[in-house]
Amino acid sequence: MSSNYRNFRNSVSWLILFLEAVFIVLYFFLFSDDGASRSSISYPAFQDVNHMVIFGFGFFLTFLKRYGFSSTGFNLLIVVLGVQCSMVIEGLLAFLLQRENEDSLKRITKATVSTTAVVISTGVVHGKTNPLQLIVMTVVEIIVFRMSRWINNTFLQIPDNISMMHVHLFGAYFGLAVSSCFSEPSPRSEKNASTVKSELFSMLGTLFLWVFWPSFNSVLAVDKRKAIYNTYFALAVSAVTAFMLSVLTSKDGKFRMTHIHSAVLAGGVAVGYAAHSVEYPWIAMILGLLASLTTVLGSCCLERCLNPALKIHDTSGVHFTFGFPGVLGALSQVILLVIKNWTNLPRVGYLVLFQVGAFCLTVSVALLTGFITGLILNLKLFKTIPVSKYFEDQFYWEFPHLAVGF
Amino acid sequence: MSSNYRNFRNSVSWLILFLEAVFIVLYFFLFSDDGASRSSISYPAFQDVNHMVIFGFGFFLTFLKRYGFSSTGFNLLIVVLGVQCSMVIEGLLAFLLQRENEDSLKRITKATVSTTAVVISTGVVHGKTNPLQLIVMTVVEIIVFRMSRWINNTFLQIPDNISMMHVHLFGAYFGLAVSSCFSEPSPRSEKNASTVKSELFSMLGTLFLWVFWPSFNSVLAVDKRKAIYNTYFALAVSAVTAFMLSVLTSKDGKFRMTHIHSAVLAGGVAVGYAAHSVEYPWIAMILGLLASLTTVLGSCCLERCLNPALKIHDTSGVHFTFGFPGVLGALSQVILLVIKNWTNLPRVGYLVLFQVGAFCLTVSVALLTGFITGLILNLKLFKTIPVSKYFEDQFYWEFPHLAVGF
Amino acid sequence: MSSNYRNFRNSVSWLILFLEAVFIVLYFFLFSDDGASRSSISYPAFQDVNHMVIFGFGFFLTFLKRYGFSSTGFNLLIVVLGVQCSMVIEGLLAFLLQRENEDSLKRITKATVSTTAVVISTGVVHGKTNPLQLIVMTVVEIIVFRMSRWINNTFLQIPDNISMMHVHLFGAYFGLAVSSCFSEPSPRSEKNASTVKSELFSMLGTLFLWVFWPSFNSVLAVDKRKAIYNTYFALAVSAVTAFMLSVLTSKDGKFRMTHIHSAVLAGGVAVGYAAHSVEYPWIAMILGLLASLTTVLGSCCLERCLNPALKIHDTSGVHFTFGFPGVLGALSQVILLVIKNWTNLPRVGYLVLFQVGAFCLTVSVALLTGFITGLILNLKLFKTIPVSKYFEDQFYWEFPHLAVGF
Repeated sequence: MSSNYRNFRNSVSWLILFLEAVFIVLYFFLFSDDGASRSSISYPAFQDVNHMVIFGFGFFLTFLKRYGFSSTGFNLLIVVLGVQCSMVIEGLLAFLLQRENEDSLKRITKATVSTTAVVISTGVVHGKTNPLQLIVMTVVEIIVFRMSRWINNTFLQIPDNISMMHVHLFGAYFGLAVSSCFSEPSPRSEKNASTVKSELFSMLGTLFLWVFWPSFNSVLAVDKRKAIYNTYFALAVSAVTAFMLSVLTSKDGKFRMTHIHSAVLAGGVAVGYAAHSVEYPWIAMILGLLASLTTVLGSCCLERCLNPALKIHDTSGVHFTFGFPGVLGALSQVILLVIKNWTNLPRVGYLVLFQVGAFCLTVSVALLTGFITGLILNLKLFKTIPVSKYFEDQFYWEFPHLAVGF
Repeated sequence: MSSNYRNFRNSVSWLILFLEAVFIVLYFFLFSDDGASRSSISYPAFQDVNHMVIFGFGFFLTFLKRYGFSSTGFNLLIVVLGVQCSMVIEGLLAFLLQRENEDSLKRITKATVSTTAVVISTGVVHGKTNPLQLIVMTVVEIIVFRMSRWINNTFLQIPDNISMMHVHLFGAYFGLAVSSCFSEPSPRSEKNASTVKSELFSMLGTLFLWVFWPSFNSVLAVDKRKAIYNTYFALAVSAVTAFMLSVLTSKDGKFRMTHIHSAVLAGGVAVGYAAHSVEYPWIAMILGLLASLTTVLGSCCLERCLNPALKIHDTSGVHFTFGFPGVLGALSQVILLVIKNWTNLPRVGYLVLFQVGAFCLTVSVALLTGFITGLILNLKLFKTIPVSKYFEDQFYWEFPHLAVGF
Repeated sequence: MSSNYRNFRNSVSWLILFLEAVFIVLYFFLFSDDGASRSSISYPAFQDVNHMVIFGFGFFLTFLKRYGFSSTGFNLLIVVLGVQCSMVIEGLLAFLLQRENEDSLKRITKATVSTTAVVISTGVVHGKTNPLQLIVMTVVEIIVFRMSRWINNTFLQIPDNISMMHVHLFGAYFGLAVSSCFSEPSPRSEKNASTVKSELFSMLGTLFLWVFWPSFNSVLAVDKRKAIYNTYFALAVSAVTAFMLSVLTSKDGKFRMTHIHSAVLAGGVAVGYAAHSVEYPWIAMILGLLASLTTVLGSCCLERCLNPALKIHDTSGVHFTFGFPGVLGALSQVILLVIKNWTNLPRVGYLVLFQVGAFCLTVSVALLTGFITGLILNLKLFKTIPVSKYFEDQFYWEFPHLAVGF
């Protein structure tokens, strides 16, 4: 085991070093000029998204009682690697297609939004993957997601800011497909549980995500004001609905923290596609209500029927937090399009076809490449961790304070 | 008990569902157009206030050792309900009085600031009310506060941004009046206490409130720059003074965390009324010093004499954190008005009369309606929780991690 | 002991009161007009720096298991005192030199950036100084740092925004010199250790610092966009490198939290000097990589050789977190200057001389005055705390919750 572990340690270091070297060399060739001088994105808007991804998601995942270091630490590692990787790919594409480079702040912002897909995927395999696997997964997923977006933009004429909103769907289904290749943890695993304090840290992350979600949905939108307004209302209603449904569905009529964590965010995910185009707040509110409903019912349903049947273990409930509301959002966008353009039937058919096509393509690409990635990550090369070491910080981190207690 | 609880569970769900349905229907009728297209409020300014109310107050209240989930969770629930409720009432008023709607961002911001009153009130009854009571209290308080502001604006010609600053006073005295109708917890209650970690979470919330207070005081002000500047200095001096006074008043010359939590914010509360009009920073500084003094001395005095006499239990020390500095702020504003206009005595008399009138009106309305609300909340209908279940997360939340320890 | 302590308690109160009185009086005379009406600094930019210093540094230092209250509390106290003190000195200088006052927001921002020096210094003596000593140190350091900057500006023609970036270097070496005068804690001290939860709180602070560092480096820069961009990339690469090096240098190939805390920030410190002038992101990235390398290797090297030899105890690893990357940054700025101007050799010589002069001057002033301050702080007057009471919240704070456990 010891020599085996040494091996792993070396591989993770050299892989990171190799990636960084490649990034720096490619930055040298690709980003020699700074693109446009005026950015369409303000620094506070970027900062909100950055804060949300680094801090919000980092703490959102700290609910496991012995996995706090890895949750916040590996999240930082993945985000910074993902952002660099995403920018390099964008630069390569711009170079190959002879397109003009965007300004620097917009580049970083788009890269950060793309990286959210990876962060969501890691939620599914949270605690079951070692850093080596996470890094490989990050690079692969960033490439595949860019490819999927490129197909959407080029062949299906989906504008960039809409195809970017597939990020939740892509992240969720890619992660689920990866997870299907991993062994399931023992259901009686004492470590796959939370404590009151770890849930409170997770609540901290959730509230950050909640507060910054309007920034996330509006940062790339054309009509930023409308996007902010609609996202806020969708989030507000889904937060309220979350409390209502949690009481109704749980066994003895108590609130369940998992429901709150997931469902308060569902509205933001669902309204992502249509945030910039919804005309009236009540539509966003109904969407928020439906999203929260989907999430809580989905969570109950998955727990009892689907997950045991499909044998997919989903540590952070990504499927119902991001997957279902994402599907609902894509669907609602199509319905809104139909309502808006119903006087012009041929155009409606055309639009619906392309939107549904983009949705199906994104999910299929995510599932397919996710499954392949999962198979690759289970190669002996990547030293899959044994099930007994799942959800365990001590496997990766030095604990000089072992005796002190948690 | 069990069937009784099931009843409660159903009532809370249906009440939330009913409210949400009403809100969505009213939004449908009231907010069909988007008002003005340019907002006088920037998105980052709104975001600061939003962040402060959701995150700052949520964690500010986590000091009780077994009430962390409820503190952060119920705070989110109350804020989102309160904001929606406040916007609906504003919309109804605009419709009834045939006034023009404000732009969307300003509407949400004003609603968020109004909701602070509710958040402050819940601090007094923190741990003693069930969610059903909290929701009813939220709706009632939002309506009454709007009514009180409307009287202030219409009959006493108090401008909107000043009457909005009564939010601390109103919240504090409404809460205290509500609390007077609830049974007191046993003074030896082991649960009405904090741990080191829960105090640290509370410090996290306090620092958030401290950092964002200048945003709160300036968001609706006319001269935003001056409001920011003055609030910062008042806060800085009150933070310094808090440490000084805490050492002087505590038994063996140590700092007391409760003093720090309350007194560092006192300056921000007290300067709220005058922040946009104070000419020189030293005035704001003196105000901050006095506010901190009022808070710490008030806390000692209340603890020893007033509270046992009045039999009002105040879980989070709202009386001395928001009540006393609010009174001081209102007073100081009058004094500053007198000094500014002393050459024009008739005008001074007129102004002072109206300001004092507004202050008295706000406090009386708060006390009266608060007391009535308290009586209503103690009806059997609302299933008041027994004193033995005060300050107990487990009464409302599922705890799958019971055995794990805190 | 008791009467001794009472003495201490009185001195800390009266010292604070005296300082506040002096500040208010000087504010009265110095800041009667508000300077320019348009600020070159936006409120969100100031807010980021304020947030970072109050919240980020406050929680960055909470890693000690029994020193959480003091970490966050004393940090707040020091920052607010430091900002007021720094503004007063700036005002006095402007008055003495008959210079025009800057606008209020710029004044507060510059004061907050200056105060970072004090916050960094307190990191070295964290847990070993009482509040009395901290307050004296704050006032002395703020004065000396302003003096050192004044010499840099006047005699070495270093622009203000560059001399301000010496803040990390100055803070680190001042703190180390102060620390050299204090007794070392026992190496087996059980209290000089962290728990998992305290490290998680510290991670919270670190992530805040990480996210807001681009704001810190850009707030006073001329080319803000470039400063943001370069700082982000330096931080990203140093975060990635931190993980790589931590695995390579630790005993059994695990990540060490201390490395992550320090090294993820190293890039931001190192790029501080050159952030506004680096042309291409790959240069910032290489700088970030080198900074992280310096930090992690420095940490290993110091721990094994230098610190035991020099007998300097450095609680928070300030030497390798801020000292080494600061030196690297100053060096890299000189190299970049040489490369940029190599066609004009006389000018290069001139520039290099002045930059190196400024660096040497800053470090020598910091070491010298720090040592003197350390000697003064160890006078009997300041009631140095005994080594057995190091790192102990209970020495300063009331603990009504003692029995409850941590």
